[in-house]
Amino acid sequence: MIVILKSNPNRDQLESLITWLQEKGITIHTSIGESHTILGLVGDTSALDIDLIAALDIVDDVKRVQEPYKNANRKFHPADTVVKVRDTQIGGGNLTIMAGPCSVESEEQVVTIAKAVKKSGATMLRGGAFKPRTSPYSFQGLGATGIEYLKAAREETGLPIVTELMDLSQLPLFKDVDVIQIGARNMQNFDLLKAVGRQEKPVMIKRGMSATYEEWLMSAEYVMAGGNQNVILCERGIRTFETYTRNTLDLACIPVLRKLTHLPIIIDPSHATGKSWLVDPLATGAVATGCDGLLIEVHNDPAHALCDGPQSLKPEVFDALAHKLLKLHACMRDLEA
Amino acid sequence: MIVILKSNPNRDQLESLITWLQEKGITIHTSIGESHTILGLVGDTSALDIDLIAALDIVDDVKRVQEPYKNANRKFHPADTVVKVRDTQIGGGNLTIMAGPCSVESEEQVVTIAKAVKKSGATMLRGGAFKPRTSPYSFQGLGATGIEYLKAAREETGLPIVTELMDLSQLPLFKDVDVIQIGARNMQNFDLLKAVGRQEKPVMIKRGMSATYEEWLMSAEYVMAGGNQNVILCERGIRTFETYTRNTLDLACIPVLRKLTHLPIIIDPSHATGKSWLVDPLATGAVATGCDGLLIEVHNDPAHALCDGPQSLKPEVFDALAHKLLKLHACMRDLEA
Amino acid sequence: MIVILKSNPNRDQLESLITWLQEKGITIHTSIGESHTILGLVGDTSALDIDLIAALDIVDDVKRVQEPYKNANRKFHPADTVVKVRDTQIGGGNLTIMAGPCSVESEEQVVTIAKAVKKSGATMLRGGAFKPRTSPYSFQGLGATGIEYLKAAREETGLPIVTELMDLSQLPLFKDVDVIQIGARNMQNFDLLKAVGRQEKPVMIKRGMSATYEEWLMSAEYVMAGGNQNVILCERGIRTFETYTRNTLDLACIPVLRKLTHLPIIIDPSHATGKSWLVDPLATGAVATGCDGLLIEVHNDPAHALCDGPQSLKPEVFDALAHKLLKLHACMRDLEA
Amino acid sequence: MIVILKSNPNRDQLESLITWLQEKGITIHTSIGESHTILGLVGDTSALDIDLIAALDIVDDVKRVQEPYKNANRKFHPADTVVKVRDTQIGGGNLTIMAGPCSVESEEQVVTIAKAVKKSGATMLRGGAFKPRTSPYSFQGLGATGIEYLKAAREETGLPIVTELMDLSQLPLFKDVDVIQIGARNMQNFDLLKAVGRQEKPVMIKRGMSATYEEWLMSAEYVMAGGNQNVILCERGIRTFETYTRNTLDLACIPVLRKLTHLPIIIDPSHATGKSWLVDPLATGAVATGCDGLLIEVHNDPAHALCDGPQSLKPEVFDALAHKLLKLHACMRDLEA
Repeated sequence: MIVILKSNPNRDQLESLITWLQEKGITIHTSIGESHTILGLVGDTSALDIDLIAALDIVDDVKRVQEPYKNANRKFHPADTVVKVRDTQIGGGNLTIMAGPCSVESEEQVVTIAKAVKKSGATMLRGGAFKPRTSPYSFQGLGATGIEYLKAAREETGLPIVTELMDLSQLPLFKDVDVIQIGARNMQNFDLLKAVGRQEKPVMIKRGMSATYEEWLMSAEYVMAGGNQNVILCERGIRTFETYTRNTLDLACIPVLRKLTHLPIIIDPSHATGKSWLVDPLATGAVATGCDGLLIEVHNDPAHALCDGPQSLKPEVFDALAHKLLKLHACMRDLEA
Repeated sequence: MIVILKSNPNRDQLESLITWLQEKGITIHTSIGESHTILGLVGDTSALDIDLIAALDIVDDVKRVQEPYKNANRKFHPADTVVKVRDTQIGGGNLTIMAGPCSVESEEQVVTIAKAVKKSGATMLRGGAFKPRTSPYSFQGLGATGIEYLKAAREETGLPIVTELMDLSQLPLFKDVDVIQIGARNMQNFDLLKAVGRQEKPVMIKRGMSATYEEWLMSAEYVMAGGNQNVILCERGIRTFETYTRNTLDLACIPVLRKLTHLPIIIDPSHATGKSWLVDPLATGAVATGCDGLLIEVHNDPAHALCDGPQSLKPEVFDALAHKLLKLHACMRDLEA
Repeated sequence: MIVILKSNPNRDQLESLITWLQEKGITIHTSIGESHTILGLVGDTSALDIDLIAALDIVDDVKRVQEPYKNANRKFHPADTVVKVRDTQIGGGNLTIMAGPCSVESEEQVVTIAKAVKKSGATMLRGGAFKPRTSPYSFQGLGATGIEYLKAAREETGLPIVTELMDLSQLPLFKDVDVIQIGARNMQNFDLLKAVGRQEKPVMIKRGMSATYEEWLMSAEYVMAGGNQNVILCERGIRTFETYTRNTLDLACIPVLRKLTHLPIIIDPSHATGKSWLVDPLATGAVATGCDGLLIEVHNDPAHALCDGPQSLKPEVFDALAHKLLKLHACMRDLEA
Repeated sequence: MIVILKSNPNRDQLESLITWLQEKGITIHTSIGESHTILGLVGDTSALDIDLIAALDIVDDVKRVQEPYKNANRKFHPADTVVKVRDTQIGGGNLTIMAGPCSVESEEQVVTIAKAVKKSGATMLRGGAFKPRTSPYSFQGLGATGIEYLKAAREETGLPIVTELMDLSQLPLFKDVDVIQIGARNMQNFDLLKAVGRQEKPVMIKRGMSATYEEWLMSAEYVMAGGNQNVILCERGIRTFETYTRNTLDLACIPVLRKLTHLPIIIDPSHATGKSWLVDPLATGAVATGCDGLLIEVHNDPAHALCDGPQSLKPEVFDALAHKLLKLHACMRDLEA
């Protein structure tokens, strides 16, 4: 960490700062320039609050040299993390396709979709049992029953299941779930992150609507600091001024995260855009950009389309897309070779 | 709600939509134009999901005419809500000044600050016991002990206390707290909102970093739908491209919310800007714009400044500011008269 | 256009509005609901200012049904526009690769790069002669001389040239340029747009840093309304809260614009990200998402790297990328077939 | 400027960088830490392109210590700039109220409004002759004739006039204008900035919709580098995700700019919000926050309200507001004393 002091800093305050830092085990290198004095802090600065130091009267600016995350940092873990979920692996060159309905509605619905998406090439089943809804008057999901239906679909197809945990009080219901999803709105629900960090199931953390890469990785760090290293990151669009699409899908996150972290990266084009006709081109773009997998909404019954999302694909449309994505993934492997 | 159909909509799909809407008790007015047909939906449309309808093949666009919130809507509750907290009132022409430390550190600290801010004119004590921290390696707050210290400070000064609830499992610890704060990161933690909606204490909801006015009011609606009408809104800056300030304080929210809702509006210039020298001018601007109160960070001990926030004022600076704000509030009352 | 009136609108004002609209040749369909009256405006509403109507006391909201752009609108021109530039074509299934230095520095530099990029598969040469620089103290480009160097490079290689026009006073210097680029900062420089609309050369309009799709298409409309239909759109990233990358590349613009307009779409991953190591994955993603071409910065002399941009690739890196992109483009054609 | 090198930088590249910097007259202080080496650059670094250095293979990050603007920088010009315009002064403790119509429509219109706003306390007349319009099909302003009408209104009232220059070719028409306005869309039209920097009239620069404080000050620097020190800054809202208001008015800019620069700061609540009922509370808030003046739209003829903007006030509403603002300004002076 580098601390840039103002010109002619108050000596007492400077000494007080230096003493305080030294008490925390930090070594200080001082570099005196013509107009500015710079302190180089050496040691474990991850627990130092950059804003606190920046607020001191004598400080002009503070700059981190080291990232504040350790477990999630590729610098300290050069090899890709591969998350094993039953017979499938997320990361490490595989293309994982997680597909299923936005909301679990009935056992029949979810089993039918699970069979269809498995046949098309999906390797995991996704579906919402607990639903975060903007309005208290909207359907809030089937809850525990929804998880039972997902398990029934897994029983039938062998597809591992991923579903969203909204509150730590629901955790006991998730003991048979394969991957726990933390939604975008809960990305900084720190008690929830700590809770899933204390258990062993893989955790997929969706990026908050206005979360920076660093904040997102710090949420992963919360889980990993608790002992659980099986973390997956999922981009689902960020909030910008453009409102034609629900959110703006940030595909640059793929190579950026690839550099910063060793964790696998999943892209959710369905939620990002909110429009089903945008899922195909953006899923295709995501695979070519190098993601480890996709999260795609699929619904089965056109007659009940109203209860599904605007971002959902029908099974036959998904089938064509999944085949294209798997071929493209193979094609990319050849091109990169 | 108005549904704009595409040209030449499929007749079967149109009938299916109309039937589905009628089953939900909606009356439909059809208006056929040269190039577009428009359906006007009359009835309680608050439970209809606008995205679902917009996703239909035959639909070009959907537009709400009524706001999706009811309890929070000024149209249905023209009179200002005044929230009573012990001997003080929030809203209704009063200027509430909530002041105190970012984090509760010790009983002595919080009692000292409480005495100081009370003398300066503050009407409530704020202080964090449970702290949402971006890093798992940062100090996470004193928790239950912190609440005890706040209660001791209330005992000494009579100032009601407001403090943040981070998870619903902590709710029993808040039974002696006067106002429960829901932080910006939890604005859409719907289980938490439901939990505080089922109890009676006033709830202050901070605006999420990228929450629209409507989303913010829908979070208030979650609490109110549970039966608790004592909701206070607190603006603390939104995330924009400008990074000089931590966030961008949106003072337009004051007159906008005044029109849309009857709930009181508090402004937090300390968190919004992240710089203590910006608190004075923005608190002043907020009072002139017409807010019901302010949330201001104050710390007492310059020697421990590092453990306080960059956005904190010292008691003597706060004293001058509080006097100015109260005089300005009186001055505004004269000017508006 | 649909005008939603407030409940119980003032009759005089309503009549005055209706008369005013009728004088503009608009036919009005009135639909009276229980709580709201809705006016459906039929006719050419493209000249009506939606904000003006929305501001009337009696109006609750206004909603466009038709897009405000005509020439750029795919509804009225279903076939893709293919822009012919010397022997090359932009759009219509081709993959155009525009490559070259950020700034033209010398004839030798630009000729060397032109030869290299042509060999790698580029079909156009880009290079800045007039440079928009944030600081008045930075190098502002070679101006007219820079254009001469570009022409020399075209002479040597046959590659058509694209370069940025910053002010309409420079237009005479562009008479031998093949494609005129309008930079992001000038996207709403309406006098400049009108000027390039009155001449015949193809115009490539970069998206403004905070421009919506509609605003961007309205800038195209300015050029096309002047008579010049040879317009190309170029996405170069939008400004968001994320600062790790210079801007956020919005690849969703490809399928969205494909639907809204018939104009070709070029992606500039170099400026969007500001980091050369992000150019490869994002160019790759853009091709798979379906763009018509790419704008890529290439510099030749590692010893002068400081005078080139952080987003520039070296010729050998570009060579590998260009080959990959062309193979991927062929692969995509097979997959879509 | 501080350059943070990567661990084990390539020695040749490091020497090449150091030589290049020294050739530019920069002195370099090297500080070698355990894991990082830091270069402190001393001298005039304002012409160094931070992005170029950041792009080097051996560089991890670069951080400016000095702002890239000089003329606009308060550090080098501690005293407030006061811009004299005929008999009035902008800055230096005065409250300047610039009022008038969005568009000049007729001599009668602008003279009538000018008389009314002068009576209410306005000290300058604003009005658009050249209008930047998103659509090529919208009214583009009266141009030269509009300027004549503004001059006639000045003749009648003595109010100095401010109006927008859209292209440098129009500059000769502005020789009798008192203050030249550069619109938000032209904030980075660098040729235009240079042109107004080479003449003597005061220039008011509106903040671009997505411009940072630094970019905005760099635009001022462009004008000042040309010799013209009479620059005024005008905030008119920034683009964010919130669409209820047209833009988000950033009142924090007032104290921030006050610290960074000596130039006067004007607030435009009319354009920022796009809604006339928000002008009063936000103008009030702006004065209390400490701005040097306001830019307010006023229209005169309710019967022609459709040709005025949704953000315009009627003269009688403006009259009440102007009186309130002037009283508040006096009140603030007492409170700050």
